[in-house]
Amino acid sequence: MKIDPERFLSDLHKLREFGASGIGKGVIRPAYSDADIAARKWLAEQMKDAGLRVHFDPVGNLFGLADGPSILLGSHTDSQPEGGWLDGALGVIAGLEVARAAKEAGGPSVSVVSFQDEEGRFGVLTGSAVWGGKIDLQTADALTDDTGLTFADARARMADLSSGFVDPEQFTGYIEMHIEQGPSLDSSNTQIGVVSDIVGIRDMRITFNGQQNHAGTTPMHLRRDAFQALSAFNAEINDRFANVVTPHTVWTIGHAVLHPNASSIVPGRATFSMQWRDGDADRLDRMEKIIRTAADEIADRTGLTVEFGDLLGLEPETMNDNLRGALEAGAEDVAPGNWGVLPSGALHDATNVARLMPVAMLFVPSINGISHAFDEDTDEADLSAGLKVLARAVSRISA
Amino acid sequence: MKIDPERFLSDLHKLREFGASGIGKGVIRPAYSDADIAARKWLAEQMKDAGLRVHFDPVGNLFGLADGPSILLGSHTDSQPEGGWLDGALGVIAGLEVARAAKEAGGPSVSVVSFQDEEGRFGVLTGSAVWGGKIDLQTADALTDDTGLTFADARARMADLSSGFVDPEQFTGYIEMHIEQGPSLDSSNTQIGVVSDIVGIRDMRITFNGQQNHAGTTPMHLRRDAFQALSAFNAEINDRFANVVTPHTVWTIGHAVLHPNASSIVPGRATFSMQWRDGDADRLDRMEKIIRTAADEIADRTGLTVEFGDLLGLEPETMNDNLRGALEAGAEDVAPGNWGVLPSGALHDATNVARLMPVAMLFVPSINGISHAFDEDTDEADLSAGLKVLARAVSRISA
Repeated sequence: MKIDPERFLSDLHKLREFGASGIGKGVIRPAYSDADIAARKWLAEQMKDAGLRVHFDPVGNLFGLADGPSILLGSHTDSQPEGGWLDGALGVIAGLEVARAAKEAGGPSVSVVSFQDEEGRFGVLTGSAVWGGKIDLQTADALTDDTGLTFADARARMADLSSGFVDPEQFTGYIEMHIEQGPSLDSSNTQIGVVSDIVGIRDMRITFNGQQNHAGTTPMHLRRDAFQALSAFNAEINDRFANVVTPHTVWTIGHAVLHPNASSIVPGRATFSMQWRDGDADRLDRMEKIIRTAADEIADRTGLTVEFGDLLGLEPETMNDNLRGALEAGAEDVAPGNWGVLPSGALHDATNVARLMPVAMLFVPSINGISHAFDEDTDEADLSAGLKVLARAVSRISA
Repeated sequence: MKIDPERFLSDLHKLREFGASGIGKGVIRPAYSDADIAARKWLAEQMKDAGLRVHFDPVGNLFGLADGPSILLGSHTDSQPEGGWLDGALGVIAGLEVARAAKEAGGPSVSVVSFQDEEGRFGVLTGSAVWGGKIDLQTADALTDDTGLTFADARARMADLSSGFVDPEQFTGYIEMHIEQGPSLDSSNTQIGVVSDIVGIRDMRITFNGQQNHAGTTPMHLRRDAFQALSAFNAEINDRFANVVTPHTVWTIGHAVLHPNASSIVPGRATFSMQWRDGDADRLDRMEKIIRTAADEIADRTGLTVEFGDLLGLEPETMNDNLRGALEAGAEDVAPGNWGVLPSGALHDATNVARLMPVAMLFVPSINGISHAFDEDTDEADLSAGLKVLARAVSRISA
């Protein structure tokens, strides 16, 4: 097949006119907004023009279906409330170009998808979660956005377009191309990233309970200061993790609230989020043990108590070897010596699709690692390189 | 003179009926509330009965004046919104009992004061601040409480009672008895504390500015995490202070806010309060240098920037040697070997009165260090011991 990078870039720029923010190349195209629905209708036209059969499912996932067994390419075209022009759009338009070129060449058989509400206006990766069977439609229908709108009412806006759910048995696999949304490729001047796995996430609320006291009359040695416990805990886990983590492991204390949070009062309580991500479920478990042990020890040592909230988790998803191998071979063809393997620290629709079929992912660099912002961008040479890798991988798989 | 501890305790319990919270011995008697004004009117009656000349000044400070040059004893009878029965009330009622006993004994000449709004409904130690000349009346009148009520309107509630300001020249010195409001005496089973100085306070808002980032896609080594900077800063100053501080020095990070404060986002900003207190102004300055240097170094090392807010400060106030010596001698008489010298970590009216005359302070234990709460309490044997120390000190000074 012969892909056309100019046509691909032209479509990408056309798509960003739907919900254009007027600031840089940014878009405002949340799931089920007028801009999102208009973009999907435009995309359906392009799919039809490419010779694909257009199919909206009950939640607004848009498929461009090829005949017979096919490889499925795509991502999502909804955006964050203040989003970038690439994010999921890139994978959908790259998929469209490969499917179109394949159709023009008389094969292989390539289908395209734009999942709905990947950005989680209602749930988490909602459209692919329903299709993949992670949550049922009834449960999803009760989800609400920040304004109280239900998912049921939101998807009703597209009811005139929709048919039933697409049978996943017709797909041999799913490949999602995406911007990295992080700085690894950009900072190392690497053009292509082949994803090894989508990391698992653990997230837990932790609270240290000490003794609220007067900050003037309470000597240091009699304090049970919850902020000091938090700070000591942070130092302790940073130290103990060193023996367990890889350069791809991440952990974050992103949320913290002191009580009563006044400059003249020794904090009696510190509640904070502890989140950690890694591609290896065993490593996630080992980190959890360190977290619990360190928190317990610090509480004991300083006369505080510690409470652990529910452990929320998503399991790591390893990419399929065959699909990943095809992407690696394609990357070596297109960008010899200038590609790498890395985990995805962010969630993607591929996590849900993996419940149905083999999946793999391909990254191109995000300039300065910026994403979910109007100034998200990628060099057009890198976008085209990613497209070529995707096309070569599809050819190789279908050969 | 012959003091009467029973009469003193009876008066203390009578006073707590004004604004009684109904929870333990707690009181709700904020400055200028009906309960506060009623309590002051009752107190004025006791002063009159004790042979003192009652005088309310324009801000509601209540004096019971003895003839000729006199020593001034007292504190305040207003309370926190949820206050304890002792706090300032103790020093006022102890002063009343000593003045009454002195009057009965035909000398020495002892006056009593209950300052208004020590608890800072409007400003900081407002009544004594105006009398001591720390702020002028016009400035004070513009202060407002949490509901927007001005100090001018609040003090107008007592206008029918008030005369001019009392001439401080008639007083030879001021002694304030108070509960410690901290755990030092209680935890060391020490009955009496003689105050060496009222500590100075420094308070500064500090902000670390890093880079807000995706907590999944941003590798640890590329993060500029503002919470991590705060935690490192805290550890660093704890370490460096060790060479500078005394067991009485205190420092507190009581307020901290992360931005955007979300579990999946690397914090881009951390703003926090840094407060430190000590009786030695030089030490406060040395600590400030450590704070600024440590924050700058951590910001440099981790690629963040740091902003320092205005440095707010109150200077330490050393107690007068003669008055303090009299208290120490009295303490050794009443509680031989069971008293100690300690700084006051909390502010008191004595800080403002020190602008006008020599001052000293005397502490009795707070059970479990609790204050500014309904369950604030002190053993009655300790209250009586404090009263005796105060009476002996007054006798010694006047001898």
